[in-house]
Amino acid sequence: MRIVIVLFGLFAFSSCNNFNKEVEKEKILNLLSQQSQDWNEGNIDAYMDGYWKSEELRFASGDRVTYGWKKTLANYKRGYPSKSAMGKLEFTEINVEILSENSAMVFGRWQLHRETDKPHGLFTLHLKKLSEGWEIVSDHTSAGK
Amino acid sequence: MRIVIVLFGLFAFSSCNNFNKEVEKEKILNLLSQQSQDWNEGNIDAYMDGYWKSEELRFASGDRVTYGWKKTLANYKRGYPSKSAMGKLEFTEINVEILSENSAMVFGRWQLHRETDKPHGLFTLHLKKLSEGWEIVSDHTSAGK
Repeated sequence: MRIVIVLFGLFAFSSCNNFNKEVEKEKILNLLSQQSQDWNEGNIDAYMDGYWKSEELRFASGDRVTYGWKKTLANYKRGYPSKSAMGKLEFTEINVEILSENSAMVFGRWQLHRETDKPHGLFTLHLKKLSEGWEIVSDHTSAGK
Repeated sequence: MRIVIVLFGLFAFSSCNNFNKEVEKEKILNLLSQQSQDWNEGNIDAYMDGYWKSEELRFASGDRVTYGWKKTLANYKRGYPSKSAMGKLEFTEINVEILSENSAMVFGRWQLHRETDKPHGLFTLHLKKLSEGWEIVSDHTSAGK
């Protein structure tokens, strides 16, 4: 019985550190890939599925901070009212850093390919693994001049 | 002896989660406070002490990513060649989120008070607790228009 408890203790301890980082990275890359696919189909609602559906979602862009999933969705819809305004979204130089079993950061570069312009910039995401899987809980986006 | 092992196992497990978050938050707030103080004394070298002294330090601003402590220091010195160019730095709306014993995120707003203008924007920092204490390992800064 004591051995069982010891083994449980050691298992519980090791579970703090042992999990497959590569598998989790792949899941996060799939989330980003799905997001750009949804964006490129003109589907902002589906794109927003990658974000935490919470009032605490934090979206920072330039000098503006928005809190909450619904407000962020509304901002996207106002900023990109048509498929041509949305253009084609491309993520490059993606770098996923798994911090723990349930926390990760992603750095990368975004670009919109549109008929009249090609806005571009950087993003820094913080993701948490929630009951619904990995979700973006904070997004900081900046644009080039 | 078995009890000792069991207790050690339980202690080791609990140490994954138990530490004083408020104490760590305070240390991080002190780091930021020291940085703005150093900046306002015109001392960029001291200001840069809050950043990880590594080639892997990541500094993202607008559309530009810089890797490495020395390059980041050089960029700051080039961008702010005098005390009047540096102005007075103020951080507001600081929000520290401790992710684990050795990882934290900080969100906030920065403003430079200068004679001719008042540039301002947002920052998202990732800090790690290293042997030298908490250090900024990644910084994403954006500016308002």
